[in-house]
Amino acid sequence: MRAEIIAVGTELLLGQIANTNAQYLSQKLAEIGTGVYFHTVVGDNTQRLMQTIRLAAGRSDLIIFTGGLGPTQDDLTKETVAAHLGKGLVTNQEAMSNIQSFFEQRKMPMPENNRKQALVIEGSHVFPNHHGMAPGMAVRHDDGCTYVLLPGPPSELYPMVEKYVMPYLMDLLPEKQVFHSRVLRFYGIGESALEEHLLDLIESQENPTIAPYAKEFEVTLRITARAQRVEDAEALIEPVEQEIRKRLGQYIYATGDDTSLHEVLVEGLKRRGETISCAESCTGGTVASLITSVPGSSAVYQGGIVCYTNEVKRRFLDVPESVLQADGAVSGQTARILAESVREKFQTTYGLSVTGVAGPDSAEGKPVGLVYVGVAAEGMPTRVKELRLAGNRRAIVGRAAKYALFYALQMQKER
Amino acid sequence: MRAEIIAVGTELLLGQIANTNAQYLSQKLAEIGTGVYFHTVVGDNTQRLMQTIRLAAGRSDLIIFTGGLGPTQDDLTKETVAAHLGKGLVTNQEAMSNIQSFFEQRKMPMPENNRKQALVIEGSHVFPNHHGMAPGMAVRHDDGCTYVLLPGPPSELYPMVEKYVMPYLMDLLPEKQVFHSRVLRFYGIGESALEEHLLDLIESQENPTIAPYAKEFEVTLRITARAQRVEDAEALIEPVEQEIRKRLGQYIYATGDDTSLHEVLVEGLKRRGETISCAESCTGGTVASLITSVPGSSAVYQGGIVCYTNEVKRRFLDVPESVLQADGAVSGQTARILAESVREKFQTTYGLSVTGVAGPDSAEGKPVGLVYVGVAAEGMPTRVKELRLAGNRRAIVGRAAKYALFYALQMQKER
Repeated sequence: MRAEIIAVGTELLLGQIANTNAQYLSQKLAEIGTGVYFHTVVGDNTQRLMQTIRLAAGRSDLIIFTGGLGPTQDDLTKETVAAHLGKGLVTNQEAMSNIQSFFEQRKMPMPENNRKQALVIEGSHVFPNHHGMAPGMAVRHDDGCTYVLLPGPPSELYPMVEKYVMPYLMDLLPEKQVFHSRVLRFYGIGESALEEHLLDLIESQENPTIAPYAKEFEVTLRITARAQRVEDAEALIEPVEQEIRKRLGQYIYATGDDTSLHEVLVEGLKRRGETISCAESCTGGTVASLITSVPGSSAVYQGGIVCYTNEVKRRFLDVPESVLQADGAVSGQTARILAESVREKFQTTYGLSVTGVAGPDSAEGKPVGLVYVGVAAEGMPTRVKELRLAGNRRAIVGRAAKYALFYALQMQKER
Repeated sequence: MRAEIIAVGTELLLGQIANTNAQYLSQKLAEIGTGVYFHTVVGDNTQRLMQTIRLAAGRSDLIIFTGGLGPTQDDLTKETVAAHLGKGLVTNQEAMSNIQSFFEQRKMPMPENNRKQALVIEGSHVFPNHHGMAPGMAVRHDDGCTYVLLPGPPSELYPMVEKYVMPYLMDLLPEKQVFHSRVLRFYGIGESALEEHLLDLIESQENPTIAPYAKEFEVTLRITARAQRVEDAEALIEPVEQEIRKRLGQYIYATGDDTSLHEVLVEGLKRRGETISCAESCTGGTVASLITSVPGSSAVYQGGIVCYTNEVKRRFLDVPESVLQADGAVSGQTARILAESVREKFQTTYGLSVTGVAGPDSAEGKPVGLVYVGVAAEGMPTRVKELRLAGNRRAIVGRAAKYALFYALQMQKER
């Protein structure tokens, strides 16, 4: 089934809101293996909407509209779709009662134009709206195309889709197939390097498919298989995942869509009854704020020191003046001492440190992007990593903070 | 000028990300009075992209593409636009040097496929990319249509648009009208309260227009005038701004698009030769990371302590056990001591503290969202504010951090 999504609303074209409905519907359609080939946004204008409908009807089997079902003059989605199909509009009694009782309950008179919201395309399948007034509807037309019209507000759209639209769409599917994904999360490797290592797999695989994408300084790989049952899809994914792990296992820190380095670290610390503290120079509190963004992190995170100046490094974290003079604040030796000092002062299992040059100006004659991360752990020799990071100040700080979390995770694995 | 926006990327059709680039570009085009008539999202597929380009070329004067300029096989925007225009691709030397120096600085070998990113359509106007590798480009074609190709990642797109693309587009406008804006930045007042105070102005004004919008826990008001010259626009804006200041002046902390509470605070500290330090409990390093995100903040920010546990509050910041017992860690008294202690220990002009319940669980029998901010300043009595903040953990932390910065600014004004 070839699907496309048409959002109707001038507010989208003015940039007042983002088209998150298209994102949501695309995710739902991907879950049932229906490919979405286009998103279109068109304004509240009959002629341009009609042009868009005709184009879509010529190339897709399923067209989902969002928006333009409201009571006002510029809401014209169902009127235009009905005109395209050569059908009329009829009052849906269930929707009419719903609208009337809404106003009765609030002891308000019903504005006349709300009657318009109870109109549906004749012969359509109606989806009740339990969170608003405009019902949704679907028309299977003899041009082979199914037209689904849904309300624009996400608070009305999402529950209608979950409860009524998805079951309706599943019934349209020619064969009962599932699409099942597994997501691998990487750190310490860029998107293009990752793709180069896996190019033969990415290009040769059709089922499952392998798709890398980058977001907020991390790279994620989605392996998606198509099969009759979830178990069969899992069986297709398994050997591909094993091959990827064989090649790039050291960069994989988690599986799954809904996690991140700091969550994985905090969960691991909780499970193992361990604690952590940080001494941050160039990241200026970013590592601490990532860790403490996880609910329940107070069980594992004691606290930390943001040691932005040399004086704070010396006074609060015992970095000797001689080291600051000889090696500098941005050095492996300073990172080592910071990690060990903070661990000792806060009496934690791990002590994490970051010191470097975030830019835009270089410091101590050292280049922007040079960063040292230190990880001290109870009963293990301290590790220091030197990084050369890319991007502007924000990117360098973000990447350095995530590297610190990644190295802490690696240390934890071996402890 | 009739514009449309085409985003290229299968990740959008899979619902992995929302098309926020189209929203951003629509706002920017609205600011210069250019109507956007369609948004389209199309996948990484030559045939469908070509179909989309042909359709757009037949109905618009300006087509802006985002995405598909990356180094990998499925990045094909410029190849397809070039084919549509019957033009070739040539290496842009400036872009090539930018890419090479990126890899040289990091002492990494350049993957072969990164060369592809330096290719541009022959005869195009090139927009340098200061935050990534793919340059943008624009082609004024003899079909009367202007094609603008921009990178997909917002961190690369936004600065390129602000610096290069907007001036380029303004030059295309048929009549030299300027749209000139002044932005007022508010803190400590919500979007709907602000709108209620200004409703008569917002509804009656046509030139200038007044548009409030909320982002990242702040509210911003944009006053936009349309005139022949910037001076005329300024003259239209002036009396409206004065009226707004008369009503809500105490909430305005800055004017301008490109600033934020932490930047205003850091600039003020620099100008006055003052310094600051923070003791953070519930914000977990967020205040520190905001302050240190400003380039040059090392001149004014000494450091800070993230005091997540009671033990750290006691050991590092001298909060007496009796206070923690009687008032609790989430109390005005604790906030006061934290602010004064951190100021004293770091020997700074100001000491800032935040302690509260970020949730999702309540603490010390105190409700989620209860937060105390303390500001200690040299030669002034310490101030403590009690806040009741709304939202989830992320929102409470974000708002609490910004309140701390806002109160520090207020204190600075009176010092």
